[in-house]
Amino acid sequence: MQAIPPALERLIKNLMRFPGVGEKSATRMALHILRWPPAVAKELGASITELHGKIGICSRCFTFSEKDPCSICQSVRRNQETVCVVEEPGDVVAIEKTGSFTGLYHVLQGVLAPREGIGPDELRIRELIDRIDKEPVKEIIIATSSTVAGEATASYLCDILKDSGARITRIACGIPMGTDIKYADQMTLRKAMESRTAV
Amino acid sequence: MQAIPPALERLIKNLMRFPGVGEKSATRMALHILRWPPAVAKELGASITELHGKIGICSRCFTFSEKDPCSICQSVRRNQETVCVVEEPGDVVAIEKTGSFTGLYHVLQGVLAPREGIGPDELRIRELIDRIDKEPVKEIIIATSSTVAGEATASYLCDILKDSGARITRIACGIPMGTDIKYADQMTLRKAMESRTAV
Repeated sequence: MQAIPPALERLIKNLMRFPGVGEKSATRMALHILRWPPAVAKELGASITELHGKIGICSRCFTFSEKDPCSICQSVRRNQETVCVVEEPGDVVAIEKTGSFTGLYHVLQGVLAPREGIGPDELRIRELIDRIDKEPVKEIIIATSSTVAGEATASYLCDILKDSGARITRIACGIPMGTDIKYADQMTLRKAMESRTAV
Repeated sequence: MQAIPPALERLIKNLMRFPGVGEKSATRMALHILRWPPAVAKELGASITELHGKIGICSRCFTFSEKDPCSICQSVRRNQETVCVVEEPGDVVAIEKTGSFTGLYHVLQGVLAPREGIGPDELRIRELIDRIDKEPVKEIIIATSSTVAGEATASYLCDILKDSGARITRIACGIPMGTDIKYADQMTLRKAMESRTAV
């Protein structure tokens, strides 16, 4: 295809690294960038290029951060007695956006996946136990995903943390807001029935 | 949201410039980039940053190109007697990928849109007429989109080109390949019936 300038083809190939982005979507994105003012494209390019250099990992909670410790760990306004355990830094972002949690986080950096060689030692579980020993933690909220691997990781954590002295809780599973009950999947509906609360 | 490092937030904001990409998708994309090896992210960043600087517009057919004239206009293997008129450079890319066209192109750089102030003078129509005068063009294929604006532009072109001496054709409208007739929209089905061909 001699019609495609090499610089455009290179960009299309790079954009195809995004999950779910095939050649067609990548081409559409690339042509879009070409329609933007050059300064806008340069700004996007720079923000991607500089990303890894600017962002490191907090040595206390293991989320992405530009500082170490991260701004959450440094904040005196956060409740130091509650730690929410999540899989990935993206989960911290999602929970922060809700504005409904004022405690600290602990990012496992993955879930247990024995087939892929990811056991407890590959996750930040030892560091979690250390934190509970040293910090005044009263509640540990296990907020791993409600996937098979997420649930297995949650069970494992419940098991090894049960004698820690802290209260162990798990985020609720149920019908998503705005969902019609007849369209909810069976597993979710069963969980929602089991976890019903008094009104 | 103090949880989001500023460098990540800046990238998310920039990614939201893509059509159909909201905050959620942009966040997902940004977190993906963060999971890539730094070199891969830098390569994507560079290919975006360098794009506008490398790509210009061919002064003969007005498609995107790193050279002027573009590689299609320069090629002696392309049929010089057939010119395919399209709206945008992206259409050239799409047609080239089919491998079914060996002639030259003419990119209008848009469609007629009187309400937005885009009349014939805003498109490369004068240049098309000049080309037909100077070049040995025997067929002009009008390959604008089958949208209202694309059809209006096609009609206008048919009208002003009818005395050019060249044969004027329009790409076929009909049922897309792989489409069940009962799910095709009425307009398309009507067009497909009208444009039926002998077998």
